[in-house]
Amino acid sequence: MAESPITARTKDFAAWYQDVVLSGDMAEPAEIVKGCMVIRPNGYAVWEVLQRELDTRFKETGHQNVYFPLLIPQSFLQKEAEHVEGFAPELAVVTIAGGKKLEEPYVIRPTSETIIGHFFAKWIQSYRDLPLLYNQWANVIRWELRTRMFLRTTEFLWQEGHTAHSSHEEAKEEVLRMLDVYADVAENVMAMPVIKGVKTNNEKFAGALRSFCIESMMQNGLALQAGTSHDLGQNFGKAFDVKFQSKEGQLDYVWQTSWGVSTRLIGGLIMSHSDDKGLVLPPKLAPNKSVLVPIYRKDEERASVLETASKIAKEIGAKLDDREGQNPGAKFYHWERRGVPVVLELGPRDVASGNIVMKRRDTGAKEILPQADVAAKLPVLLDQMQKDLFASAQKRLKDNTVLANSIGEVEEILKTVTAEKGGGKFVMAHIKDDAVCDARVKEFKATIRCIPLQDEYDGPGNCIVTGEPVSHRVVVAKAY
Amino acid sequence: MAESPITARTKDFAAWYQDVVLSGDMAEPAEIVKGCMVIRPNGYAVWEVLQRELDTRFKETGHQNVYFPLLIPQSFLQKEAEHVEGFAPELAVVTIAGGKKLEEPYVIRPTSETIIGHFFAKWIQSYRDLPLLYNQWANVIRWELRTRMFLRTTEFLWQEGHTAHSSHEEAKEEVLRMLDVYADVAENVMAMPVIKGVKTNNEKFAGALRSFCIESMMQNGLALQAGTSHDLGQNFGKAFDVKFQSKEGQLDYVWQTSWGVSTRLIGGLIMSHSDDKGLVLPPKLAPNKSVLVPIYRKDEERASVLETASKIAKEIGAKLDDREGQNPGAKFYHWERRGVPVVLELGPRDVASGNIVMKRRDTGAKEILPQADVAAKLPVLLDQMQKDLFASAQKRLKDNTVLANSIGEVEEILKTVTAEKGGGKFVMAHIKDDAVCDARVKEFKATIRCIPLQDEYDGPGNCIVTGEPVSHRVVVAKAY
Repeated sequence: MAESPITARTKDFAAWYQDVVLSGDMAEPAEIVKGCMVIRPNGYAVWEVLQRELDTRFKETGHQNVYFPLLIPQSFLQKEAEHVEGFAPELAVVTIAGGKKLEEPYVIRPTSETIIGHFFAKWIQSYRDLPLLYNQWANVIRWELRTRMFLRTTEFLWQEGHTAHSSHEEAKEEVLRMLDVYADVAENVMAMPVIKGVKTNNEKFAGALRSFCIESMMQNGLALQAGTSHDLGQNFGKAFDVKFQSKEGQLDYVWQTSWGVSTRLIGGLIMSHSDDKGLVLPPKLAPNKSVLVPIYRKDEERASVLETASKIAKEIGAKLDDREGQNPGAKFYHWERRGVPVVLELGPRDVASGNIVMKRRDTGAKEILPQADVAAKLPVLLDQMQKDLFASAQKRLKDNTVLANSIGEVEEILKTVTAEKGGGKFVMAHIKDDAVCDARVKEFKATIRCIPLQDEYDGPGNCIVTGEPVSHRVVVAKAY
Repeated sequence: MAESPITARTKDFAAWYQDVVLSGDMAEPAEIVKGCMVIRPNGYAVWEVLQRELDTRFKETGHQNVYFPLLIPQSFLQKEAEHVEGFAPELAVVTIAGGKKLEEPYVIRPTSETIIGHFFAKWIQSYRDLPLLYNQWANVIRWELRTRMFLRTTEFLWQEGHTAHSSHEEAKEEVLRMLDVYADVAENVMAMPVIKGVKTNNEKFAGALRSFCIESMMQNGLALQAGTSHDLGQNFGKAFDVKFQSKEGQLDYVWQTSWGVSTRLIGGLIMSHSDDKGLVLPPKLAPNKSVLVPIYRKDEERASVLETASKIAKEIGAKLDDREGQNPGAKFYHWERRGVPVVLELGPRDVASGNIVMKRRDTGAKEILPQADVAAKLPVLLDQMQKDLFASAQKRLKDNTVLANSIGEVEEILKTVTAEKGGGKFVMAHIKDDAVCDARVKEFKATIRCIPLQDEYDGPGNCIVTGEPVSHRVVVAKAY
């Protein structure tokens, strides 16, 4: 595919995002299937690294992977009143199969609480069967009106954890444990700082008692909900009659949780670190951490350069770009746009001098060092880049977080913010968890992103909408 | 879940299979979604090992993973005449989405040649864009009438490779390369011997020029098609107008291949090695290769047994089953049914004597050995078990392969064979690749499984149906 120019972030952030996704070989729109995308090789490779990082942590915390059917009998959705209300408008419905009209249509899973509830009822009889700690890697469909690659697509890939417990206490611990796993992967793998918090009742998952989330800030100051973990209480237990006999011999409904992250994370990753030259990948998520480009003009240089290059590439685990018919400049451009953290160059003079050139993707800084040192220096450089990307994202979050003490002030700060022009802020304000307040904030197209689990500001205050006392400030922002 | 008895293979092979699947925690029927199953933790863990083994080989042979939409515009299926004829009866159709009737319905992918053809046309202009070597891990739906867990389910998990080439020669090489990858995984990882062959024209994939397959023999003598690799010729290139400019400047349609294996492999695995005690897993596919069960009766034994057990388990990478409230007998039974290759026992007397007991799942043989030797002996034992399972399956294949020289003889050998009673054979006979012959064999509910790539018998002969000369014998069998 031809290489196309990348719009500058300052000119149009939304166009820049689309350009980075396309030029980074991450995804492209599948215009013939409404709101869907094709995930291209670089995008899928990043998703595989993310999956591995998440999956390892899920297993370390005692979860097992399972797989439930894609199709759910339509009637299942109706068993939990809030759940069906939340998802009904977004369903894709199979009405014909095997050449016949179905007596009862199936919906394509928008999420799997209902079908899993059905099986939990079969599998759980006693407290001895608990906890059940399951996770599923799957595709889901939600028929969205406005879509953007990775950030919101009608079909997306995700994992959904589903657990059942014998007490609310234990379920609540699980919800926070998995929120911590998400925050760990976001911050320490993706280099994307997050705020852990609780959604307002108005913004919680359809069918949950309480939804917890990690919220992050993109380069345009907009918020992105990067992961959620739900305390489902006994809502689905009651809807699907999932009962267990307790140690004391009493029958009770199980306490459930569910938690998920999706390919949306890749959108967050892109909007956290990439620049006007294209994709920037934090080393821990990069499918290729380093690429070595050999440089030679004459045929007689070729053999000696390739020999040394291939020896070094092997030693340091770099990908050797020995494609013929592509000049070095085209190769540098190719890997730069694909976000490779470190690109090494080796030419005939380097072979003679015993040196090599190492270039960082994020800062563009070039370093000439002895070939003998590269095996030791490369991991240090990658580690530094990982830290610097996190620090820089963290500084941006801090610099763009402001306090406001009246609703007018919040509105004033956010009113001109758009995804295209940017200028977004996280506005910290005292606001009550009350539908009236959510509605007031929505008047200027912002939302209460979350009530932070930890207050980093000035503690209690009076709600700037209702005047009632609240414990601490919440995050208000425009969001994806 | 309660442990239920396992039917003997000799009594009812089909019932035995179902019992092994259930008691091995592999899967269970999802009766509320027609023909679907839930893949349970042990089944999914085996699938993960299989995925890893396959995926590594796909990447080593230059393929990249990508992801295409689940939904395909219905009209796409109609662009390749044979393809739509083959798949139309099995389609699940989405007619409503987002609360509205769709103008053009979508089908849930039964396979992705058509939607990928659409994108190949966008991505390929010149020979420089070729070859494109892609693979996709995905779920697909084919509305089947008769289903069996893993072997045939309406939804299944699989990988589908899709490649485009500038010459038929190169495409044909790819088809055979991937067939070899499948045979390698089947034989060297799954310990399941296979015959590589070509399907008859009548049995080939809908839309292919030629379909290649690996066929294996189950313990009841029935055949299982375990993987296929298709030479699509220019059929989809023409249907989706995928043209490229050759080095010589001429426009031509691309040559495509597709190849896939699915969760069906797990059914083949089970029916190759398991026994009347339940699942048997070849070590290379076992999520837990070994489990250590500590044995103690009195509380004062507990600490010293657990201490030594946990030290050994850590050293040899065994899973330590230190669950409380379960006696050792129940634990042995538990792991036996789940197919763990080696179970180790350690009791107070072993702690005192410095010994440990090691038991092989397939033969049931127990060995007492010094604890100091187990780290060295365990990998040897696992390796031996892997080899023995393969040798035993290979002997069964050989013992149950027979020659026949008339169609009456073939019919006689196969007429009483059923999936329940077994007695199946691979009958090697000279039969021509002609629809008349396929039909004749189907009269007694058998099929021509494949024309082997390598003749291991007596070379040319006359077709036992048409009398015409053919190059060598083909495999006739009853099959799943």
